[in-house]
Amino acid sequence: MTHEFRNVSAGNEANEFDVTPWSVTGSVNYDNLIEKFGTQRITADLLKKLASMTGEIHPLLEFDFFFSHRDFDWILDRYQKGENFYLYTGRGPSGKVHLGHLMPWMFTKYLQDKFDAPLLFQLTDDEKFLHGHNKTMAEISAFTDENILDIIAIGFKPEKTKIIVDTKHIKHLYPMALEIAKRITFSTARAVFGFTNSTNIGMIGFPPIQAVPCFLPSLIENKPTPVLIPAAMDQDPYWRITRDVAEKIGYYKPAQIHSKFLPSLETSGKMSSSKPKTAVFTTDDSETVEDKVSVAFTGGQPTVALQRKLGGNPDICPVFSYLQYMFDNPKESKERALKCRSGNLLCGECKQDLSSNSVSFLTDFQKRREKAKDMVSQFMYKE
Amino acid sequence: MTHEFRNVSAGNEANEFDVTPWSVTGSVNYDNLIEKFGTQRITADLLKKLASMTGEIHPLLEFDFFFSHRDFDWILDRYQKGENFYLYTGRGPSGKVHLGHLMPWMFTKYLQDKFDAPLLFQLTDDEKFLHGHNKTMAEISAFTDENILDIIAIGFKPEKTKIIVDTKHIKHLYPMALEIAKRITFSTARAVFGFTNSTNIGMIGFPPIQAVPCFLPSLIENKPTPVLIPAAMDQDPYWRITRDVAEKIGYYKPAQIHSKFLPSLETSGKMSSSKPKTAVFTTDDSETVEDKVSVAFTGGQPTVALQRKLGGNPDICPVFSYLQYMFDNPKESKERALKCRSGNLLCGECKQDLSSNSVSFLTDFQKRREKAKDMVSQFMYKE
Repeated sequence: MTHEFRNVSAGNEANEFDVTPWSVTGSVNYDNLIEKFGTQRITADLLKKLASMTGEIHPLLEFDFFFSHRDFDWILDRYQKGENFYLYTGRGPSGKVHLGHLMPWMFTKYLQDKFDAPLLFQLTDDEKFLHGHNKTMAEISAFTDENILDIIAIGFKPEKTKIIVDTKHIKHLYPMALEIAKRITFSTARAVFGFTNSTNIGMIGFPPIQAVPCFLPSLIENKPTPVLIPAAMDQDPYWRITRDVAEKIGYYKPAQIHSKFLPSLETSGKMSSSKPKTAVFTTDDSETVEDKVSVAFTGGQPTVALQRKLGGNPDICPVFSYLQYMFDNPKESKERALKCRSGNLLCGECKQDLSSNSVSFLTDFQKRREKAKDMVSQFMYKE
Repeated sequence: MTHEFRNVSAGNEANEFDVTPWSVTGSVNYDNLIEKFGTQRITADLLKKLASMTGEIHPLLEFDFFFSHRDFDWILDRYQKGENFYLYTGRGPSGKVHLGHLMPWMFTKYLQDKFDAPLLFQLTDDEKFLHGHNKTMAEISAFTDENILDIIAIGFKPEKTKIIVDTKHIKHLYPMALEIAKRITFSTARAVFGFTNSTNIGMIGFPPIQAVPCFLPSLIENKPTPVLIPAAMDQDPYWRITRDVAEKIGYYKPAQIHSKFLPSLETSGKMSSSKPKTAVFTTDDSETVEDKVSVAFTGGQPTVALQRKLGGNPDICPVFSYLQYMFDNPKESKERALKCRSGNLLCGECKQDLSSNSVSFLTDFQKRREKAKDMVSQFMYKE
């Protein structure tokens, strides 16, 4: 399917944006992204079907944060026919975990709870070391250990969840990675990931490692086993090449459900832990959270008077987004947007809401994160 | 050093030949190869120095089978100053072991005995799976197990020799491979190995795995430790990129001592186990050995009468080469060449000598190979 293999850049058009697994630049048009990547929009019918099976729709679906998919309908069909699926998601441990990271993980927990699905959670420490030049493997390993506590604190089922750390579990990943690697040419990898002559050969050889957990469930269950990947849309290039290989080695293509990128508190781009000042980390104390939120970018007017007169724009407001995706229910969020647009809500009030909600959430989360320290071995994949 | 990075092909000249780690084509001019690869010839002075340290020169050096090196003189200098070195060699387990494979291994044993050097012996089962499309991993693994018996039967010191199988020991190789991979661009790898757009990304990502044992001794000894690699010249591209990386990560460049390629019994090319009829395998019974040698290519004349009249050419005769490298002493070999050239020796006589010598050698070798079955775990690198 050549269509799936073209480069993901939008080129030099106006409103250009570029999405790769390593960076998101420009203002992303998600409709265009669906068309470019060749994925499907999550339709009202699909949500209706999901609701009929689960009893409730997660707010991140209602708010269109998870907006795109491949074969999610197929996963539900198979499930209805009695075939269970695995969940697979991951994290590149290049820094601390921030609030934005938690959202797809909480959504993954929702899927695990509703479908009683086993989950493989991969930490790509190798890739984070290979990409960029600024971190040693020791630094990446320290982040990996910290990130594992965040994952466990989400509340995944210990008996159904296994965490894979690439360098630690490479023995179990490598044989299948070879099978995959053998079936991907440099041409294909270059087109999908945008590799250049100056890309290091570790990065070029890496994608099969991230593909392996799509097929591990089939090895574990000793039969072709469906896998559903909830993850941000920027990871899609990996699944495109994996889907192409799947058929060649006799397994199901991994299904995906794609999220948008969370805006940073500073700009309207993707919230990034590599720019520490723009992110609220899970380990931040209350004062730090309040400080960070207080200086956040908003969709409001420069002055109170103008805000009262003209109203704000929640569509480009990261404070609004965080409140919507993490703390408001649909009714509250609708009201907040209306009040903002009509000038009846000041940015300071929204910031106060986000700040107090975040502090309250993190107080609880940090307790669970502390308890997670005793649960690590229980969650790790066999060595 | 740009000079080290140019492609190894001789281009479209007359007498062209091409040497990569995966194939040797054309008639190799070893003087040209030294110039192209930027290595040093093994000089009489270097042999004299070696003799002064070891008491004897291995016939494979006397016969110029090991003919080229990088930093072998440096290894000897450090040794004289009290710094020990590791030996490192390897094998791609794509088939059975034949007599030709044993020669560099027997030479490696000589070096181990003379310098009491620890040896790392790597089996690149991953690379042999990735290269070509005709063998499954299960088939490669079966060859790996068989090849290990041949390695042990050579008689390496069990307490000083560790066998590494890439897929089995990947956990110990992977972290260092990442450090190496990060420092090699696609441009460099393409220039050195001749990768193309249709090369699979496993092959492009592989070279660091073969480079790792150059640095493992430094990890084991917890200080920069010299390593000497005895191997056929076609593996040199690996060591060129490894040497370039070595300085960047604070270890010694690996030293090498390069052998020529053994001619096949059928043509004057490299003896290859992928063309089974041309090779005497270590597991062949006496009758099979006799059959194979009896139909071997020689440097002789088409008829006995012509041979008596014109004499033969030992320089292009694989039967002569095998006798020289494996069974004749220097005096015997000189006499054999003289008698051949003068028409006083018939091909049938040389074949009879090679056949009986090989049968006698293999009878003993196969006994040791049988005993090796109980010694495998003793020789394996820690898991």
